[in-house]
Amino acid sequence: MRDDLKVLVIGGVACGPKAASRLKRLMPHADVTLIERDDVVSYGACGLPYYVEGVFSDVAMLTETPVRVPRTPVFFETVKGIRVLTRTEAVAIDRNRKIVRVREGNTGTESELAYDKLVLATGARPFIPPVEGVDLEHVWTIRRLEDAVTLTEAIEKKGLKKAVLVGAGYIGIEMAEALVERGLEVTLVDMFDQVMPQFLDRDMALLVEKHLQPNGVKLVLGEKVTALEGDHGVLRRVRTEKQTLEADLAIIAVGVRPNDSLARDAKIQCAPQGGIVINSYCQTSDPDIYAGGDCVVNQYVHPIIGTPLFIPLGSTANKHGRVIANHIAGLPSPFPGVTSTGICRIFDITVGRTGLTEKLAQELNLDVETVIWSGPDRPHYIPEQRPMVIKMIACKRYRKLLGLQVVGPGDGAKRLDVAATAIFFGATLDQIGGIDLAYAPPYGPPIDPIATTAHVLLNKMNGLAHGISPLEAKRIMDDGADVVLLDVRTPDEFRETRLEDPRVVHIPLGALRKRLQELPKDKEILAFCKVSMRGYEAQRILNAAGYDRVRFIEGGLLAWPFA
Amino acid sequence: MRDDLKVLVIGGVACGPKAASRLKRLMPHADVTLIERDDVVSYGACGLPYYVEGVFSDVAMLTETPVRVPRTPVFFETVKGIRVLTRTEAVAIDRNRKIVRVREGNTGTESELAYDKLVLATGARPFIPPVEGVDLEHVWTIRRLEDAVTLTEAIEKKGLKKAVLVGAGYIGIEMAEALVERGLEVTLVDMFDQVMPQFLDRDMALLVEKHLQPNGVKLVLGEKVTALEGDHGVLRRVRTEKQTLEADLAIIAVGVRPNDSLARDAKIQCAPQGGIVINSYCQTSDPDIYAGGDCVVNQYVHPIIGTPLFIPLGSTANKHGRVIANHIAGLPSPFPGVTSTGICRIFDITVGRTGLTEKLAQELNLDVETVIWSGPDRPHYIPEQRPMVIKMIACKRYRKLLGLQVVGPGDGAKRLDVAATAIFFGATLDQIGGIDLAYAPPYGPPIDPIATTAHVLLNKMNGLAHGISPLEAKRIMDDGADVVLLDVRTPDEFRETRLEDPRVVHIPLGALRKRLQELPKDKEILAFCKVSMRGYEAQRILNAAGYDRVRFIEGGLLAWPFA
Repeated sequence: MRDDLKVLVIGGVACGPKAASRLKRLMPHADVTLIERDDVVSYGACGLPYYVEGVFSDVAMLTETPVRVPRTPVFFETVKGIRVLTRTEAVAIDRNRKIVRVREGNTGTESELAYDKLVLATGARPFIPPVEGVDLEHVWTIRRLEDAVTLTEAIEKKGLKKAVLVGAGYIGIEMAEALVERGLEVTLVDMFDQVMPQFLDRDMALLVEKHLQPNGVKLVLGEKVTALEGDHGVLRRVRTEKQTLEADLAIIAVGVRPNDSLARDAKIQCAPQGGIVINSYCQTSDPDIYAGGDCVVNQYVHPIIGTPLFIPLGSTANKHGRVIANHIAGLPSPFPGVTSTGICRIFDITVGRTGLTEKLAQELNLDVETVIWSGPDRPHYIPEQRPMVIKMIACKRYRKLLGLQVVGPGDGAKRLDVAATAIFFGATLDQIGGIDLAYAPPYGPPIDPIATTAHVLLNKMNGLAHGISPLEAKRIMDDGADVVLLDVRTPDEFRETRLEDPRVVHIPLGALRKRLQELPKDKEILAFCKVSMRGYEAQRILNAAGYDRVRFIEGGLLAWPFA
Repeated sequence: MRDDLKVLVIGGVACGPKAASRLKRLMPHADVTLIERDDVVSYGACGLPYYVEGVFSDVAMLTETPVRVPRTPVFFETVKGIRVLTRTEAVAIDRNRKIVRVREGNTGTESELAYDKLVLATGARPFIPPVEGVDLEHVWTIRRLEDAVTLTEAIEKKGLKKAVLVGAGYIGIEMAEALVERGLEVTLVDMFDQVMPQFLDRDMALLVEKHLQPNGVKLVLGEKVTALEGDHGVLRRVRTEKQTLEADLAIIAVGVRPNDSLARDAKIQCAPQGGIVINSYCQTSDPDIYAGGDCVVNQYVHPIIGTPLFIPLGSTANKHGRVIANHIAGLPSPFPGVTSTGICRIFDITVGRTGLTEKLAQELNLDVETVIWSGPDRPHYIPEQRPMVIKMIACKRYRKLLGLQVVGPGDGAKRLDVAATAIFFGATLDQIGGIDLAYAPPYGPPIDPIATTAHVLLNKMNGLAHGISPLEAKRIMDDGADVVLLDVRTPDEFRETRLEDPRVVHIPLGALRKRLQELPKDKEILAFCKVSMRGYEAQRILNAAGYDRVRFIEGGLLAWPFA
């Protein structure tokens, strides 16, 4: 590799600056130029919702280093030794001549930049659904720094009060929280009949919905937005198939699309659904052209999912940047793929997912078993203990962990990262139960929730535990089936809160062995308690006494997503 | 396996009740008896320091289920179907007759209990050093429930004020915090010249010491306690080799020893240093006798450490209990071994370790590289961000992670669990950098600290990053070496706090390329900043300009353990 290599990087948010900076550290004499269409480079785009929320008040923090040095072109020149051209757009790539034609934004002047290696980090743009009114005033997408700034200014200066958020994914939900915290009335609309439809299974999404509503987010699910309407060019209403919502502010957050047209025009291979195709070293179909960040498609970490995945994330973009620099510098370090890990904080709960959802596993025709577990994240005598719900998905044949979802105030982030690591290494459920995780009461119970969940799932697979998901239990109850709903909690717990259903029979677990005769052998029994550990014990006791049709409601009342 | 198997469990704290309860769920018709020498069974022994601290005020919480049902013998009988005999001590095992002779504590009556399978969960006892005065009044060990109760009562009723804690391991430090929080004067004494000598490398222990002192814990390190002295049988002073410490309360916490004499007397194989030897299924040398919890020795998860490890932990004890029940029930699930993971909260910092320390790796004659990283656990614009220091140890040959230590207010617990998982699966540093960990600003930066630390360590191994540990830098400084201490922080940072040393040269990183001539080429340069990311960049810039003798001080000022 020539030491004075000419490297051109297109795109200045995450992958681009990372690739450029790393490359200059690896190859100090390389000639590295980064161009960016916008005014700002290397900013914390993921921080935008928190700025809108008011978590921090100075938007400059997003464009500064931790010690508050602005990451300007001058910063990149003096600190990193990288030439940065802002307001400079790449117009076309001439692969034969190894030239990129660029246009200067202020003057429109076009010029050519030569490269030995080219890095495409062109990012993604919000998808705008083809409905009327999306160009009205007071309709935003949240992608660029100025989106968050103009939104915040408009709320403050014009006193906007009623927000409709179109799309209940990550950004929609993060923005819902941000706007509620700012005192707005917030309605979240999604055409799917659940929040986070690409991200969570329905049973876990219901728990999120149960949390959003009391926090002041009105949900309109299963309804498509048909039009945005305004007066004199300013938004006034959002129409869905079924209703009209008053709104003086709307945010469209129905997903993003990769900016792959520059690559596509240059005949670089792209996925049919969009996104530049790359190999493990982030090389495109032209080996002198690399791509990374939100403009590419990724592979899943294991060959379970054959189709490429478009999962734009700042963490992945930064990894790509490093992989690109390393490969250019002759220090190859393959990118291993993604596990579809994501997390967000919604008011005071953590919502996260890694690996496959049950729904996705079914679409992939995998034979899976799942379980829902609930419980505190620490021993009950530690005041900081908080409840959480975990859903675990594993393949039946190899008993490998395929996916995990967490919802709740408890420390789900830690368990999610352990699961992401375990999936990365192809862990079996038995292995997960055996990992020597750090234990002390301020951090968790002696058997970590992720291990307990794996144990319950193994118990199900071994035919010991007969669980039923809350959704299925609700369906059976709603169908009017002649079942016994066996509540095995203590009398105190039963007095405090209970399932209001005439089929409920209350026998505390401690009395069950003596009061078996109160239960019919010819009816199905659905046992439960607060978290269904005792529900499971009741099932085992009843099984031993000759009751065959017994299941416990997974996760108990804590994971019960209904009223 | 006969369904009506007779199983006898000796020991009722963690492993014993877990094995018994699980077994009854697996084999409902098994005849399971648990005997316990003490009054209480199945209690949260790890919660004792938090009770003393006043984190919760009702000690009964430790002996109750999360819904506050007391785990009494009656509870075990009615809920679990297990017969529990408290105040009942096992005196001898007759392996030929498969009989255990037991003694009832109140009456001294001896009787025999038959078993098909026997489980030894006899735990450990505090080691009492052979010095005078350990039997004085107001000298405690903290192991059993009544230890914590009598200690707390004595502090409250007798107004004890000056505590000396002998032993600066886990328990000593947890108790130091507990007693400081109760308003006592606390001195922590250890014969080793650092806190947590079995647990942390010296560089990380220094950071803990730097945190203990301002929180009111006086440290007396490198001094052996020679005697405890009292007046009229009540403690008054603790003498070390060098000084006399006034004390009206002492806690001896110099480690525990496995209770293996019952096994040893029955000619069951035990390790020379103590502890029952078990196989992966927790079987002892007698296949009908199992053992688990604090009375056994464990194997390391990989065949790196040949000698068995005595690491008594509640988490391991519970895992053993499950392994034992599974194997008895014909559902074998091997215990994979431990990774020496441990964690504790010390005032407001988290201190943890998993895998090998650098010291242990050296003793094992492994060729390792290490690095110290410091930084915030979340992006700087998130108010909840807290700093942390990570030390990572990897083998040079295979570039595999061998160990991790964390110290600081940041969320080290999450990174520790990821590391424990990664070590379990034999992860390389490149793999750790590639794991798809959950990213959103409230949870961490886009590149997780554990990935960044792995990257820096790879940079060191690849000859790009030339780091020097704080300890080594301090040694060089103290030796009066003619070096340049190059501070590359901003002028604002430099004004606020700095290393007071005439060899310090301050050139902000942004000015370094222009002010190279101010630096001599013939002297060693030690570059640093707040966390040494810029220190590393300075090293690369200087290397490119022909400066060969440049290193950066790992972890920067944030990880600087000295004044």
